[in-house]
Amino acid sequence: MAAKLAKHTYGKHRVRVSKVRRPRKAAPKNETHEFVEVSVDVELEGAFDAAYLKGDNRAVVATDTCKNTIYVLAKGDPIDSVESFGVTIAQHFLDEYDHVTACHVTLEERVWKRLLDSPHSFVASGAMTPTAKVTQSRGEAPQVSAGFEHLLIAKTTETGFADFHQSRYRTLSDTDDRILATDVTAAWDYDGSQVDYLAARQAIVEALLGKFIDHYSRSVQETLYLMGGAALEACDAVTNITLTLPNKHHILADLARFGLENENEVFVVTDEPFGYITATVAR
Amino acid sequence: MAAKLAKHTYGKHRVRVSKVRRPRKAAPKNETHEFVEVSVDVELEGAFDAAYLKGDNRAVVATDTCKNTIYVLAKGDPIDSVESFGVTIAQHFLDEYDHVTACHVTLEERVWKRLLDSPHSFVASGAMTPTAKVTQSRGEAPQVSAGFEHLLIAKTTETGFADFHQSRYRTLSDTDDRILATDVTAAWDYDGSQVDYLAARQAIVEALLGKFIDHYSRSVQETLYLMGGAALEACDAVTNITLTLPNKHHILADLARFGLENENEVFVVTDEPFGYITATVAR
Amino acid sequence: MAAKLAKHTYGKHRVRVSKVRRPRKAAPKNETHEFVEVSVDVELEGAFDAAYLKGDNRAVVATDTCKNTIYVLAKGDPIDSVESFGVTIAQHFLDEYDHVTACHVTLEERVWKRLLDSPHSFVASGAMTPTAKVTQSRGEAPQVSAGFEHLLIAKTTETGFADFHQSRYRTLSDTDDRILATDVTAAWDYDGSQVDYLAARQAIVEALLGKFIDHYSRSVQETLYLMGGAALEACDAVTNITLTLPNKHHILADLARFGLENENEVFVVTDEPFGYITATVAR
Amino acid sequence: MAAKLAKHTYGKHRVRVSKVRRPRKAAPKNETHEFVEVSVDVELEGAFDAAYLKGDNRAVVATDTCKNTIYVLAKGDPIDSVESFGVTIAQHFLDEYDHVTACHVTLEERVWKRLLDSPHSFVASGAMTPTAKVTQSRGEAPQVSAGFEHLLIAKTTETGFADFHQSRYRTLSDTDDRILATDVTAAWDYDGSQVDYLAARQAIVEALLGKFIDHYSRSVQETLYLMGGAALEACDAVTNITLTLPNKHHILADLARFGLENENEVFVVTDEPFGYITATVAR
Repeated sequence: MAAKLAKHTYGKHRVRVSKVRRPRKAAPKNETHEFVEVSVDVELEGAFDAAYLKGDNRAVVATDTCKNTIYVLAKGDPIDSVESFGVTIAQHFLDEYDHVTACHVTLEERVWKRLLDSPHSFVASGAMTPTAKVTQSRGEAPQVSAGFEHLLIAKTTETGFADFHQSRYRTLSDTDDRILATDVTAAWDYDGSQVDYLAARQAIVEALLGKFIDHYSRSVQETLYLMGGAALEACDAVTNITLTLPNKHHILADLARFGLENENEVFVVTDEPFGYITATVAR
Repeated sequence: MAAKLAKHTYGKHRVRVSKVRRPRKAAPKNETHEFVEVSVDVELEGAFDAAYLKGDNRAVVATDTCKNTIYVLAKGDPIDSVESFGVTIAQHFLDEYDHVTACHVTLEERVWKRLLDSPHSFVASGAMTPTAKVTQSRGEAPQVSAGFEHLLIAKTTETGFADFHQSRYRTLSDTDDRILATDVTAAWDYDGSQVDYLAARQAIVEALLGKFIDHYSRSVQETLYLMGGAALEACDAVTNITLTLPNKHHILADLARFGLENENEVFVVTDEPFGYITATVAR
Repeated sequence: MAAKLAKHTYGKHRVRVSKVRRPRKAAPKNETHEFVEVSVDVELEGAFDAAYLKGDNRAVVATDTCKNTIYVLAKGDPIDSVESFGVTIAQHFLDEYDHVTACHVTLEERVWKRLLDSPHSFVASGAMTPTAKVTQSRGEAPQVSAGFEHLLIAKTTETGFADFHQSRYRTLSDTDDRILATDVTAAWDYDGSQVDYLAARQAIVEALLGKFIDHYSRSVQETLYLMGGAALEACDAVTNITLTLPNKHHILADLARFGLENENEVFVVTDEPFGYITATVAR
Repeated sequence: MAAKLAKHTYGKHRVRVSKVRRPRKAAPKNETHEFVEVSVDVELEGAFDAAYLKGDNRAVVATDTCKNTIYVLAKGDPIDSVESFGVTIAQHFLDEYDHVTACHVTLEERVWKRLLDSPHSFVASGAMTPTAKVTQSRGEAPQVSAGFEHLLIAKTTETGFADFHQSRYRTLSDTDDRILATDVTAAWDYDGSQVDYLAARQAIVEALLGKFIDHYSRSVQETLYLMGGAALEACDAVTNITLTLPNKHHILADLARFGLENENEVFVVTDEPFGYITATVAR
């Protein structure tokens, strides 16, 4: 058969691991804990063609082995951030297996925050899911991308959409006062310089949020661009940022049918269909 | 046909509405907003048998009408809480339709918190979903139940499970130091006395969390009972509380296979199967 | 503390097990397989109060043990149906543990159908999820309830909704030709007589579907009642059936705005809000 | 600010539409219907920079307009397939708006099959979700990719995994008899020649399934490659196919702990972690 293997990758997805960080083994019972939970996807590229073409598995690192490896690496790595843990994992697979040419690691974190003032109790914050993607090719430095998912933010005024394109299927009216609600996904690339991932993340998130609130938004597009620019300004090591800002519509409820005036007070909340706006802002 | 209509209810589910609360219509643009979002399920009981038995719809309030009604009521009600909005809705349907004998309203809230110090920007907190259930029968006071879903909390020590039943299929060992992670669902009933729903909710949640952290947990069961008792103590108007504490297992990773000691540091996180523990604690 | 333990149950949920049924161990490689997959929730009631009240776990059968037990029982039971496997499980827990007073088993099946004519390949049918609930109290016969979830069916004509209640918030017009789409959940109780669960299920599903298509539907309510009656007629051992028929609205698209007539051809599909209609039909 | 707009696209996602195909308007009531339901994502590229950079919306076709357009096009197009409807949509946006340089349409279908022999009743088949992706740039022919998601298939024997790479973190044993279960995602590109999309899809799915069952599988990788090759053989117009075959593990239950022999009969079903294998097979 003339079928050619054009591209291939494999690995283990959804390897979920949690780690309790303690000061030391012999610490007293009321030592202060830190608690971190991540889900890891790891994919390998390399000399695996024979498995596909001939059923020859000798080069195949079992995905089960990949899974075991994540747990072992979680022991040695402090998991200070999803970014740094991703770097550890990618580096390991290249170091361990000569025939692996590239390793891709995608991570997401469930953020556990300290509960009240307990030294060892935690509550999951659902406000945002930090993510990271680390790609490393043999002989090269790791490429680190960081970001987050599921940040729901809204403006209840200072947002409009007007003077947009007129065409035969347009029915939406101009508005200078609406709700803008969105579920932000962000991913930014680092340039390879030394970076404090946690500090950079905090600065970038603050910049994104600070920009979201500081202007009258003439469109999701404009706000996206301004937010992207603010992120670039907040961290020199970021080369570009991709933002996806779905427009999770809150539609003004039609109360006039019932003899009531709706002064931008009551809205119908919908999940679908939704406006989808994405762009990459670079230096 | 001898088929009897034994029980029936109908209504509209997932009516999602958001409301912007402004000080007044003529307020300046930089007025401070509050933003609330709820999803409402409403169900009606009453003299609807003819619809089922004879295809006679004259008594049927269309579920579309139920939906419209929620939006109208959202205009007039301040939606101070899911509990109070539920009471408004239940009362309305009984007042409006003589042939409705009971109304059941189930609500859940998406909590929007102020974003930074913006007067009109908000971020959704995913930490917990407040819920309420209001049931009102004609001629009676509304029965109000409040609660929440999706509160993920964990203890990284001060929790064990030992000396439990020995039987031929037991393989789990005793432990006096494990992770206890759970996704709490709670619902408590009010006794009908005058209650400040928001203050009561806050006191109950604080009591639940405070109890979760204050003791060595010998089992999920013991912790559930202690938490339930604390909730009852925190609010006199609560007659009982039902708590569901699934055991979202973090299983100690077996690193001995790789020559490593796992000093309660690295855990495999699983969603299923999961331990399911539920109980009602009453006065 | 005066807190009383009013009700409690616990067990393991989402114990997922698959079983390959082979004719016999020594069968040749090309023997014909059958493949079944179920997810089991098991809950126990009994003398477990001390665990809640005193942290005394001696009576507690660990949920981990419950899980192990399901796998062991899956070995011995043919898993001919979710109903029969549920009976096996409930009976086992009562037989094994004297202090268990009642056992509740909830099961759902992923249906695997033979793929082409292969003796050992299967394709998952997503058309319907069979379910069962078995409750057995000590000294009594098991109570078996069977049913299904996620059966999506639709009628594209021969369905209307007219002459329903007029009120100030009604905006929906009468129609004698609409789409009726629903995602049926059904559960029926058996009377305890000897029943061939698979044959009964097949007869009941056929009766439900046959009734769904055979009449002009004046409302979801009427169709629900007719379907329920047909199910009772199809199987003498069924004492009652509860049907839930959410109205998954396909709303006529308003094309008149664009100068087009929509002759009941193009519909906007929505998931929420949705009409919710449920009733129990009994003999 | 030096922020550059590097890439951008926007549109409407999850525009869900259903269509009833009738022979003609004046057909009798018992005419035979066909029923089709699709969800459409449409994205536009073009001269939209001013919206991002200057808040100038004059070129922006509102996503609401995009949504309206889908409904209008659903009226005129027979929706014979997701592929052909996608072509119609992409072509429309290029024809309608001179400043649009490219249009991307992603579609998925909910397959409704005739229910029994009813002329106008249907049941949703959950067995597979057909998908299509159409990309068209101005002045070029549409590029059509077709595929599907959520095809769950399994082999209960004639599948093994042995002689794979040995390393310090490997714990998995060789096996020559296991369960291979996977949830196939497939996408293939057409070369632009005239194609009967429905016939091609059927031939390709049959080839994929026929190949899945016809050999002893030495690895998911080998089976993926063989399936990809079979698809290419089944349709000359396909230039390449990308298959993703997650390994949804059914793990042999350890019953030896309970004195039982598990002759490849009872398996623990897991969703995560899962092996992830993807490759593109080309001519």
